[in-house]
Amino acid sequence: MPVTLYYNPQSRAQLARWLLEELGIPYTIAPVEYDDGSMRTPGFLAISPLGKIPAIVDDGKSVSEQVAVALYLADRYKSPNDLAPAIDHSQRGDYLRWMVFTANVEAAMTQKFADFQMNPRQAGWGSYDLVVDVLKKRIAQADPWLLGARFTAVDVVLGGGLNYAVKFGGFPALPEFTPYLERLTTRPAFARAAVAGG
Amino acid sequence: MPVTLYYNPQSRAQLARWLLEELGIPYTIAPVEYDDGSMRTPGFLAISPLGKIPAIVDDGKSVSEQVAVALYLADRYKSPNDLAPAIDHSQRGDYLRWMVFTANVEAAMTQKFADFQMNPRQAGWGSYDLVVDVLKKRIAQADPWLLGARFTAVDVVLGGGLNYAVKFGGFPALPEFTPYLERLTTRPAFARAAVAGG
Repeated sequence: MPVTLYYNPQSRAQLARWLLEELGIPYTIAPVEYDDGSMRTPGFLAISPLGKIPAIVDDGKSVSEQVAVALYLADRYKSPNDLAPAIDHSQRGDYLRWMVFTANVEAAMTQKFADFQMNPRQAGWGSYDLVVDVLKKRIAQADPWLLGARFTAVDVVLGGGLNYAVKFGGFPALPEFTPYLERLTTRPAFARAAVAGG
Repeated sequence: MPVTLYYNPQSRAQLARWLLEELGIPYTIAPVEYDDGSMRTPGFLAISPLGKIPAIVDDGKSVSEQVAVALYLADRYKSPNDLAPAIDHSQRGDYLRWMVFTANVEAAMTQKFADFQMNPRQAGWGSYDLVVDVLKKRIAQADPWLLGARFTAVDVVLGGGLNYAVKFGGFPALPEFTPYLERLTTRPAFARAAVAGG
């Protein structure tokens, strides 16, 4: 049974579709809409408790939350394309760290758009400027991908998240970001997911 | 070589210490302080790019970000106590979903304390009320733990995060939370970590 992706092209689910294209595994799309209540039905809330996408069903089990969906898929499906360092691989910790770091990008953008102050000691992400600065340094070292020679799911999730953040003005279009985002968005699987998304 | 935990008892690193006690593996503590600059040294920033704790060093490799540290440790160390469903286990997706959900608890609390409005469609966590409601329903089903009979790292990370949120007034002390938080905070490993933390 292929993975089912609950999906709307105008959403974070586009990254999950890109990841499925990178993994090269079969999947089916279950479209959900923002305006017709299809994200608030009891059936969908059993799959995604917040009523958010992306969410998937695989082998009769559901997974929701962008980072969880990506961690799940990349660990579970290693063929034809293996996008996750194994549990005993020396890059596993770095892989997990930068996957989870995506939450800091979201938090920093929220702080920018909602324009609130918070003590950087209490904020898990520190501050907007700190997150931008840390990513600037880290992305500048991507050669060519975040973990080096090997393209992984962290490029899709963190890199793809950064791409949206820059595109929508949440993050500055720094010269340190440009070559990496160019490499990402010219990948064949990125284009396939974009075309599929309409 | 035991795992090194960068630690301050007045921080999110207390949860990582509790997890290490639950895993039952040897670890050493590297104390860091908020006021003496020890979180802003080049050496520490190489371990934790945001200068945040918890962070660990294991086998010469560093991991930072609360959820990443927990995912890493629970997957890597399965003995004496196995706190993570394996990659091919039917509960793996649920485990990852609720681990990652911890970011929604942080985001919801931030929204409450910083008191900002955001379109629930654009906010990854929806809204403060939605996160509280979803957790209320989920925690009420914990029997006795989040994934059922088996205690896992998600109880430490999400459950422990909820415990702090309730303790510090970020989340309401709902009757649906109380029995679960009572079970959590009376575990021997919770007490050992608390005593060790001073």
